[in-house]
Amino acid sequence: MKKALCIMSGGMDSTLCAYMAKKEGYEVVGLHFNYSQRTQDKEKECFYKICEILGAKTVEIDTNFIAQIGGNSLTDRDLEIRKTMSDEVPNTYVPFRNGIFLSIAAAVAERYECEAIYIGVTQADGSGYPDCTAEFIKAAQKFINLGRVYQSTVKTPLINLSKADIVKEALNLGVALEYTWSCYENGVVACGKCDSCRLRLKGFSKANAVDKIAYAKLS
Amino acid sequence: MKKALCIMSGGMDSTLCAYMAKKEGYEVVGLHFNYSQRTQDKEKECFYKICEILGAKTVEIDTNFIAQIGGNSLTDRDLEIRKTMSDEVPNTYVPFRNGIFLSIAAAVAERYECEAIYIGVTQADGSGYPDCTAEFIKAAQKFINLGRVYQSTVKTPLINLSKADIVKEALNLGVALEYTWSCYENGVVACGKCDSCRLRLKGFSKANAVDKIAYAKLS
Repeated sequence: MKKALCIMSGGMDSTLCAYMAKKEGYEVVGLHFNYSQRTQDKEKECFYKICEILGAKTVEIDTNFIAQIGGNSLTDRDLEIRKTMSDEVPNTYVPFRNGIFLSIAAAVAERYECEAIYIGVTQADGSGYPDCTAEFIKAAQKFINLGRVYQSTVKTPLINLSKADIVKEALNLGVALEYTWSCYENGVVACGKCDSCRLRLKGFSKANAVDKIAYAKLS
Repeated sequence: MKKALCIMSGGMDSTLCAYMAKKEGYEVVGLHFNYSQRTQDKEKECFYKICEILGAKTVEIDTNFIAQIGGNSLTDRDLEIRKTMSDEVPNTYVPFRNGIFLSIAAAVAERYECEAIYIGVTQADGSGYPDCTAEFIKAAQKFINLGRVYQSTVKTPLINLSKADIVKEALNLGVALEYTWSCYENGVVACGKCDSCRLRLKGFSKANAVDKIAYAKLS
């Protein structure tokens, strides 16, 4: 059975990707990264729960050097996570995170002969990170296959979907969205205010759907 | 002063690269990776010694997931390191190692605003690894700059040099080659038989120069 390595954060987008890979007939291998981000434990729990539901194999990799490099509010606790939308790249941008994740995925895919690598990037309705564009993924595809013996295809089924499209498609496929975590803050419930919560809530709202996860009461 | 991030293994090629970067007028920041390879302690010692000589800043990053991924004889102690030359990619090939190293270097370079990233790959006289070609580096350059806010240039001054050229250039620049380690085995002295020793010795021989490091007596 052909294998797909799915980079899975435990969030909504990458979870949908893994369901799509399974629907395409792949044996799903979930790949999760810990990088000492604020919500590491929550994301990991969601990752394992989703993989259990999907019957997927799991690979968990520690990349704590990302926190060592620093310079972003996901790993630096003394930087505040932005709560207002703006056109600038926000301080939640982790330098070249998707580049690092794709490179490690390439090594894992080569080792386990996974012919597809799924990554849930979206350029249509994201936070404006440079490592989420179609042009970047095209360059990644070339980089990955020129540098290895085994060849795989990078798949980004969400690249041009809006958050509303993502919610609709996820509900369509019966994705267990109630087990996903998107919030950048490590609260007991999602904050509802950070970029990631706002984008998620906007997606549900535009899709006329109800998000079943709990949010902090907004003042 | 403009900064160059130099990926340095503690071996001959990357050490020469760092000297070349310094000669080009850069402030050198040495970047070293530990990945539970057999010769981790020796390489690390060489890295720090060379950086001390160069007056370079140091960044040391643990990437032990490379050993977790496995599939190569540098990290898998139960695989034997090849001692005969052949045209096949040898089992010392670590899946996508340079891809991973360049991606992490890209993040470090973005964080510390290093306008150049030096990597000592050589396609002319290497072991035939796919992640050492000029075409691969060109793809890496595109991948790295498309995925980041800050832009840097990947420099590979050794890409077309033979090992003999490298030895000559290193002696020319007064590189402390006696403090470098190339052997794949973790012996008290270099084995003289692995691909890496053979290439190094061939380089010295063709350059009519003497390698001052100690080798095991060859039977």
